[in-house]
Amino acid sequence: MAPTQATDGQSERVAVIGASMTQFGQREEWILDLLAEAGSECLDDAGVDAAEIDHLYVSNMTSGEFEGMTGVMNALVHDLNAMPAYTQRVDQTSSSGGAGIYAAWQSIMSGASEMTLLVGGEKMTHKTTGESTDIIASIGHPVEYKHGVTLPSFAGLTARHYLERFDVPRASLAKVAVKNHKNGVDNPNAQFQREVDLETVVESPIIADPLRLYDFCPVTDGSAALLFCPESVAQEYTDDYAVIAGVAGATDTHVVHEREDPTVMGGVVESGKEAYEMSGYEPDDIDVAELHDMFTILEFLQMEGLDFAEQGEAWQLVEEGYTEKDGDLPVNTSGGLKSKGHPLGASGVAQAVEIYEQLVGEAGPRQVEADVGLCCNVGGFGNCVITTIMEAAE
Amino acid sequence: MAPTQATDGQSERVAVIGASMTQFGQREEWILDLLAEAGSECLDDAGVDAAEIDHLYVSNMTSGEFEGMTGVMNALVHDLNAMPAYTQRVDQTSSSGGAGIYAAWQSIMSGASEMTLLVGGEKMTHKTTGESTDIIASIGHPVEYKHGVTLPSFAGLTARHYLERFDVPRASLAKVAVKNHKNGVDNPNAQFQREVDLETVVESPIIADPLRLYDFCPVTDGSAALLFCPESVAQEYTDDYAVIAGVAGATDTHVVHEREDPTVMGGVVESGKEAYEMSGYEPDDIDVAELHDMFTILEFLQMEGLDFAEQGEAWQLVEEGYTEKDGDLPVNTSGGLKSKGHPLGASGVAQAVEIYEQLVGEAGPRQVEADVGLCCNVGGFGNCVITTIMEAAE
Repeated sequence: MAPTQATDGQSERVAVIGASMTQFGQREEWILDLLAEAGSECLDDAGVDAAEIDHLYVSNMTSGEFEGMTGVMNALVHDLNAMPAYTQRVDQTSSSGGAGIYAAWQSIMSGASEMTLLVGGEKMTHKTTGESTDIIASIGHPVEYKHGVTLPSFAGLTARHYLERFDVPRASLAKVAVKNHKNGVDNPNAQFQREVDLETVVESPIIADPLRLYDFCPVTDGSAALLFCPESVAQEYTDDYAVIAGVAGATDTHVVHEREDPTVMGGVVESGKEAYEMSGYEPDDIDVAELHDMFTILEFLQMEGLDFAEQGEAWQLVEEGYTEKDGDLPVNTSGGLKSKGHPLGASGVAQAVEIYEQLVGEAGPRQVEADVGLCCNVGGFGNCVITTIMEAAE
Repeated sequence: MAPTQATDGQSERVAVIGASMTQFGQREEWILDLLAEAGSECLDDAGVDAAEIDHLYVSNMTSGEFEGMTGVMNALVHDLNAMPAYTQRVDQTSSSGGAGIYAAWQSIMSGASEMTLLVGGEKMTHKTTGESTDIIASIGHPVEYKHGVTLPSFAGLTARHYLERFDVPRASLAKVAVKNHKNGVDNPNAQFQREVDLETVVESPIIADPLRLYDFCPVTDGSAALLFCPESVAQEYTDDYAVIAGVAGATDTHVVHEREDPTVMGGVVESGKEAYEMSGYEPDDIDVAELHDMFTILEFLQMEGLDFAEQGEAWQLVEEGYTEKDGDLPVNTSGGLKSKGHPLGASGVAQAVEIYEQLVGEAGPRQVEADVGLCCNVGGFGNCVITTIMEAAE
């Protein structure tokens, strides 16, 4: 417990030695069982006993609102047999998972913990669409909410602006969905393991013009977990681990209409800049990325905010196949939120699970060649963003 | 942002350079305005501009359940003009405030932040008692909740056991309430600034036998804030600051009836032991303490768990006046949760605000002589506990 580890030597880094995710989709279990399932599997994956955990972070936005259970992190310590490990719920709305990674990283770097389990999860599908919408819309500024502007509305407004300003064909947006569904076929835990063709996307029902049903991620139940420790401890367990090379979070205006340029996600730009600087890597060094494609337009905006493309040009890379699994920068090999699903608190964790599996060579049919990977987890409409860069142990 | 600070030198510590709390009680403002009020006052107190904040933690349990606002931390960054500071909501039920201190400490020690503002708060009084009870009862294990065992029930059962087992007069419990109300008279921000006599307490209506109305803290609105930075940075601002000497969190069983001895709070014992060890201080070194007196019985159990008294003997210290303001170990000089009030997420922060003010000599009529202080923040019925030890800068 004493803060000795981080001060021992400049060279200590935070390792990820285990990862897991449950089946995403419509699940019968309640939140606690979903979290326990991912948490146990992650410990098994790493070969670590629950008694070795010092800290347990639970990334979850709404267990109180969705299931009337607020003490879910304490119950999870109990169910995992991890007592007296410290626990805390990490909430950063839809970026709670990324915030959990940041908290776990801090717990190790500060010397507070030598073994931190992060479990993210959400149970959502049992609510009606109206109930879910009310809860999710509460992420935004109440003024916007009262005027009926929800996250999908912002996505529609932004997409229209982007298409018109940069003279982009509507089909380019749809190609993000087509690509991510294609990748999801190879992910046995994805909610949708099936391809969709371009025509299906562009002719699906309008949700927030110009965006249609297939431009949006689904409502999902599921959980994902990661196990963190100092790199020196990791080496006692395995040679196949990943390292957090950079992690940073940043906010943008909470009131979306106050942003100078609706196509620039300030939180992405700022957290990306800090994560690159911390890691010593540049955009060109990234071999694989998981971006927060809650809406197709967001994949463009994050590619641009993270300097994978110039402003207004990300769509061209998608058109050219640059972000396909066999392209120069595979994006969302997991299927992304679009086909894998988006259980709020789990999503940021699941992004990093995919990057971890790519880096340690456990991605099966989704495997690409990768030494360095990035994930970008977006809260609200970019109100808070966490960018994480991971690298394979050499 | 790079994790350089904590690795610079073994001697760097985390300082607290500002503190504030709002009026506690029944407030008209909603949660966001309460948080902004405490946050702004804390920055003013330290003479630090909002633009200097790297991280903003919001300790809050139920802004979603109580007010339908989940993105409250993002909104607060906006309202404080602290963009692009990273933000996250810290939830550890009724110990969210203590968990926020632990998170803030980690953010500085890991090198992630050089200036972290922590704001804790809750808005509760606008709900009916039934609504509040439902939300607060969701802290516990659902099995207990479904059987009607709420936190006050556990307190009653534990109090009865304690009184019978250790042959303690009922009046001893009441003396905790009398003492804390007496202290609260000198706290202009306390919800109840009035004394109660022994007779009033022991003759007040029964809530959970043997505990009566005046053995319980009230339902409260309010907010409190603290500003953290590395000690080397603190010295640029002030000579009058406090230092986090030790901080640790630990869990006990989530199902209360699984505990071996109902009078031993395992989370208190474990977090206390770790915090003492980290600080190098022993119980005898503590000059002033804020304990989580949500129920009077808890003040006894924490005194014993923290080794201020042997098991079954804390009540004797209270009888002897040992914990009075002019005693050897003043406990709850702020008035405690009992008279100051208990806005869940704010309480752990407000405990540390009191200790900070005692250490830097700003406690006014409540001032005692203190170089080292401790606070103990309890989540649920001891399901998770955070103990913090602070010392005055020399």
